[in-house]
Amino acid sequence: MNGANEGVSFDVARSDDATGARAGVLRTPHSTVETPVFMPVGTQATVKALSPADLDECGCSVVLANTYHLHLRPGDGLVAEAGGLHAFESWNKSILTDSGGFQVFSLRDISKITEDGVWFQSYIDGSKHFFSPERSVEIQRNLGADIIMMFDECPPARAGERAIAAAVDRTLRWAARCRDTHASVPPRHGFTQALFAIVQGGTSKELRKRCAGELAALDMPGYAIGGLAVGESAPEMYDIAGYTCGLLPGDRPRYLMGVGTPQNILECIGLGVDMFDCVLPTRNARNGTAFSWNGTVHIRNARHTRDFGRGIDSACGCYACRNFSRAYLKHLFCAGEILSLRLLTLHNVYFYMELVRKARENIMAGTFSSFRAETLNRMKAGESGEETDGKAPNDRTT
Amino acid sequence: MNGANEGVSFDVARSDDATGARAGVLRTPHSTVETPVFMPVGTQATVKALSPADLDECGCSVVLANTYHLHLRPGDGLVAEAGGLHAFESWNKSILTDSGGFQVFSLRDISKITEDGVWFQSYIDGSKHFFSPERSVEIQRNLGADIIMMFDECPPARAGERAIAAAVDRTLRWAARCRDTHASVPPRHGFTQALFAIVQGGTSKELRKRCAGELAALDMPGYAIGGLAVGESAPEMYDIAGYTCGLLPGDRPRYLMGVGTPQNILECIGLGVDMFDCVLPTRNARNGTAFSWNGTVHIRNARHTRDFGRGIDSACGCYACRNFSRAYLKHLFCAGEILSLRLLTLHNVYFYMELVRKARENIMAGTFSSFRAETLNRMKAGESGEETDGKAPNDRTT
Repeated sequence: MNGANEGVSFDVARSDDATGARAGVLRTPHSTVETPVFMPVGTQATVKALSPADLDECGCSVVLANTYHLHLRPGDGLVAEAGGLHAFESWNKSILTDSGGFQVFSLRDISKITEDGVWFQSYIDGSKHFFSPERSVEIQRNLGADIIMMFDECPPARAGERAIAAAVDRTLRWAARCRDTHASVPPRHGFTQALFAIVQGGTSKELRKRCAGELAALDMPGYAIGGLAVGESAPEMYDIAGYTCGLLPGDRPRYLMGVGTPQNILECIGLGVDMFDCVLPTRNARNGTAFSWNGTVHIRNARHTRDFGRGIDSACGCYACRNFSRAYLKHLFCAGEILSLRLLTLHNVYFYMELVRKARENIMAGTFSSFRAETLNRMKAGESGEETDGKAPNDRTT
Repeated sequence: MNGANEGVSFDVARSDDATGARAGVLRTPHSTVETPVFMPVGTQATVKALSPADLDECGCSVVLANTYHLHLRPGDGLVAEAGGLHAFESWNKSILTDSGGFQVFSLRDISKITEDGVWFQSYIDGSKHFFSPERSVEIQRNLGADIIMMFDECPPARAGERAIAAAVDRTLRWAARCRDTHASVPPRHGFTQALFAIVQGGTSKELRKRCAGELAALDMPGYAIGGLAVGESAPEMYDIAGYTCGLLPGDRPRYLMGVGTPQNILECIGLGVDMFDCVLPTRNARNGTAFSWNGTVHIRNARHTRDFGRGIDSACGCYACRNFSRAYLKHLFCAGEILSLRLLTLHNVYFYMELVRKARENIMAGTFSSFRAETLNRMKAGESGEETDGKAPNDRTT
């Protein structure tokens, strides 16, 4: 165990020579998580369209849940009565909850922000609610995730330097309050919850440095990079993510919040990020977009109408790819069948898990750099070559 | 094999002494089906919200598909190119297609009926289509189900005796045309398809007798009872179903189309019906209604909000009941989560399969009559007793 409050342990199994990438092992009260890891988003106590058995099949070892949504419905008190999120959603591996900060700050127009915390209205029934560092930790105690996050101030995408600096200051003051509440309010569900800090600072290296430095002094068991993937360019995002990774203690897991595309994830693994979450694989599935080693596949596209010979990705071993042709998936999607949402979601989550699993395999083998280059090239060629994998349409043998 | 054109064989393993119930074995080119059997409806080449693996888990050995819907989308020609429905939807057990008659006759306002057949407009794009006995059999050849149905005239629910008599006459003339087409147009997918006849006649015993008698002379491998469950009372339905069963050859399977509730199914098994299909378990699931041995469970009901200790049915072994509380299912449903539709559908289909499986077990044991009485009583008590199973809410041990 390491860091204030403990709850998790983290070991770096291998650091890549050529890049910042590292392969690690994160142990939580509920599972052993090999990093780099992708965490599917289970906003309302389920990953949309997937069952726990589906997540197992995808090889998921940790999923996210959203404090904001669960506080409003069904209520964190109810989840606590159910025995916490693990019992409630019947998931026996790890869970991470965010703090609710991202959501309430994105509702600026209907919320009131003070030093004490944030008042906001429920999007469900208009009722008034209050989040603060203390409340967020208490709510996350009720929910009972393995990893819980500090309540931070998330400035809007296009905030000026002064606003971002103020957000860093407040995030640092709130971090101390989160840590104190975590120390004084005991866990409710019989195991230690690890509290991770979040580095803010927008695209300013100076602010990132100050924020990371002060948070590192708190000796937390894990560190997140927040405030990225909110509208800045990809090169800016990589620049700041890589810079911030370098500021964080090397023996703690680094979690880049809300990122991203398969390409983003590969690049950021190379910068030293260990943990990712993003709604892309699940949300895009519901819009008919599948990810693959050869780029994205838009399943509604007319070219799939008679493509009986292959699934989404010839190289994929998921239930959807093992059993169903693109023609069938297109039919299901166009006919509005629920099964299509599940199969595309299952595929996308499986693909993201394979992506990080193979990245780890290559880090361990010392081949991450070439793996990353080849994978990015293949995806790029697939995008421009309209998703062809260079094989005859009827070849499903590989 | 028995009956014109063969395709299936059917043996009665045991006939009940006290009722008309019988336990049988129906062998098709793709599976052995123990009867009585329930066939989930897979209108658009999928049972809504379920995968083939889910259907396997429920113990399904035969599913329905709708000729009308598949002809319009994706088109029976496309399904034929895919290798037929089994290959297209990745289902390796039996499939039964209806003839499309029920749908096109229910669209009377936008269709034109002649002795030759029925012209109708697509509900998808307004395009014009023509179904006739010949076309229906040809389309069902393309789709490639194990069991296909004759194109019959389905009179409206409240048609007068004269209209029903005319429908019987036409159904008989069309039956000969279906049989001839089936004899002259070969199967497309490498196995023999069994063509079942459909007895019409509304609630008139005289008409049912004439229709059943003439169809029996065709020596088909199976017989369906159509034109019931279209608005008549339950006692009328039972009266006619039982009467018609008595008119049909004892060595052929009897299929009551579109029936019904768990109670309907138990009663009709007692009257001699071997095969059932109905949208109730799947459609009601999507409306938040689950079936159980103790009556229906309306999952949105406030009483389930904190019911953490039991699933839908303490006696059920399905994935949903093994893993999820009513409180969680209610949350998922109220939050609009796709997973709730799947879990409720999975449960309902599993329950229907258990119902017919247990009915068969009791027929074989000579105890069907008391099983039926006890099950009907228990369901009735559950309905009036607000779905309680008489156990403490936290008891999931049985």
